[in-house]
Amino acid sequence: MSDSTLVRVREVGPRDGFQNESEHIPTADKIRLIDKLARTGLQRIEVTSFVRADVIPQLADGAEVLEGIDIPEGVSVAVLVPNARGLEAALEHRDRIDEVVVFLSGSETHNMRNINRPIADSLATCEKLLHEIKAEGLRPLASIATSYGCPYEGHVPAERVYDIAGRLAAAGAEEVGFGDTTGMANPRYVREFFTGAQERLPGVELTAHFHNTRGQGLANVLAALDVGITSFESSFGELGGCPVPKGSTGNIASEDLVSMLHEMGLETGIRLEDLLEATRDVQQVLGRPLGSHVLTAGPVVWNG
Amino acid sequence: MSDSTLVRVREVGPRDGFQNESEHIPTADKIRLIDKLARTGLQRIEVTSFVRADVIPQLADGAEVLEGIDIPEGVSVAVLVPNARGLEAALEHRDRIDEVVVFLSGSETHNMRNINRPIADSLATCEKLLHEIKAEGLRPLASIATSYGCPYEGHVPAERVYDIAGRLAAAGAEEVGFGDTTGMANPRYVREFFTGAQERLPGVELTAHFHNTRGQGLANVLAALDVGITSFESSFGELGGCPVPKGSTGNIASEDLVSMLHEMGLETGIRLEDLLEATRDVQQVLGRPLGSHVLTAGPVVWNG
Repeated sequence: MSDSTLVRVREVGPRDGFQNESEHIPTADKIRLIDKLARTGLQRIEVTSFVRADVIPQLADGAEVLEGIDIPEGVSVAVLVPNARGLEAALEHRDRIDEVVVFLSGSETHNMRNINRPIADSLATCEKLLHEIKAEGLRPLASIATSYGCPYEGHVPAERVYDIAGRLAAAGAEEVGFGDTTGMANPRYVREFFTGAQERLPGVELTAHFHNTRGQGLANVLAALDVGITSFESSFGELGGCPVPKGSTGNIASEDLVSMLHEMGLETGIRLEDLLEATRDVQQVLGRPLGSHVLTAGPVVWNG
Repeated sequence: MSDSTLVRVREVGPRDGFQNESEHIPTADKIRLIDKLARTGLQRIEVTSFVRADVIPQLADGAEVLEGIDIPEGVSVAVLVPNARGLEAALEHRDRIDEVVVFLSGSETHNMRNINRPIADSLATCEKLLHEIKAEGLRPLASIATSYGCPYEGHVPAERVYDIAGRLAAAGAEEVGFGDTTGMANPRYVREFFTGAQERLPGVELTAHFHNTRGQGLANVLAALDVGITSFESSFGELGGCPVPKGSTGNIASEDLVSMLHEMGLETGIRLEDLLEATRDVQQVLGRPLGSHVLTAGPVVWNG
């Protein structure tokens, strides 16, 4: 890729991060943090989900958050929905939303444990939702968990993931994210996987979502960049991700991702210092040291 | 590189890691830990240094450690020496040692702050030491700190680092390690740097020593592998490294490195489970959670 390529970074912390916090985060703090993130140069933010409040109480204030945030022109707001009821709830805030994300797993067992349905059922639901999202004039996104491996099944065949992605794209998904839910991806497989995905899914924006579970998060980003992927998801402060295995770190930190990309001479449009300010804020809200490396070490300084 | 390439991993935790611990580690613990490391399939271990005890009291028991360890056939034992007096002290244990490492910085300011001498003086000392190490029939190694950037000077010209490495090689160094002392390397620069180094330093084993200061440690390993580097240094438990900036993580964790290499289908000869057992032991000795990712998450399990 040329140096002028803009690498797209989609911030998922306010949804993926906040839903994994055991402590209640006040709605006003969420709104302030999202407003800060939206002023860092980040172009895309997933702000909440519309899931049943008894399942994910951490995001029960999704509607309030959506109505409370003040998002500058040019920043795209996404919400995640699990089903028709979630989409219906999200659409009550139609004018506050730009993108809607649907999701399922690439592994049958993970889908059963996470969503309590077989993949075929989830896929049918996602297809219906994607059609409706598109009909509403919103940008339809889909996300496939355990794309590179499953903690219950082990290997997840790439062909199966491509097939699911193809069905989602045919139903209207303009972008498909491939999640490394429990950090099983490695750079060699990432290159193979995305080389195949680009052949099989022309015209679909392919987004890589890696976890730093085993320290390979940014190595996997590099591997994906090497084969032409330029869209990534990450979470400020390294928040969120999957708590399997227990105690693991989750998503790659947005600050670490942006720092590496900038050091490599790639553009993201994001001001790292502003992003770090948002991360310092969320660290204070959560009251514990976060896993982000650049938050601790600070950005590279080249002038001594 | 082909899959049958053996990637060489040099464990530096007992020296680089232990010297950065503020708590005293009992000599018996050090000996047990090194003996464990030496039974993991690791072929190379830097066990201590011979530096003045008032400068690095943490390693004042170097001689005792060297005499106490029980190293299996085929495992190479290295010590680090800063000067003629250090080498003299090390050579009192000549039959316990296989390799001796000398060091300096690629940055004038870092060399002054770390060794209190200009690079030219350090280089002259290193050259003398390397000749003597070779004459003793031991394998001479050299290590260049701040090879990819300096926290005081910023950019460190690759040509200067190559020149220093060339002088060290001419004086007998069979291997030169390039240290990312404060985590300023990025994958793009690593590829450029090692491509040039291989052209400029034929016949010298080139070893990459990366830090995980900004989360890019394994991404830099991948970048180096991509251009043909197959020798790396790392530290069990992510111990050690440079405490600049304050609070930063240091060396890449040996477990994380080995896990990534194995997941990529590359051979190291190391049994990850045995390495993790040594890391669990050192974590217990130090009594705090270590930064190693695979220690927390466990190795990838592919059979569900």
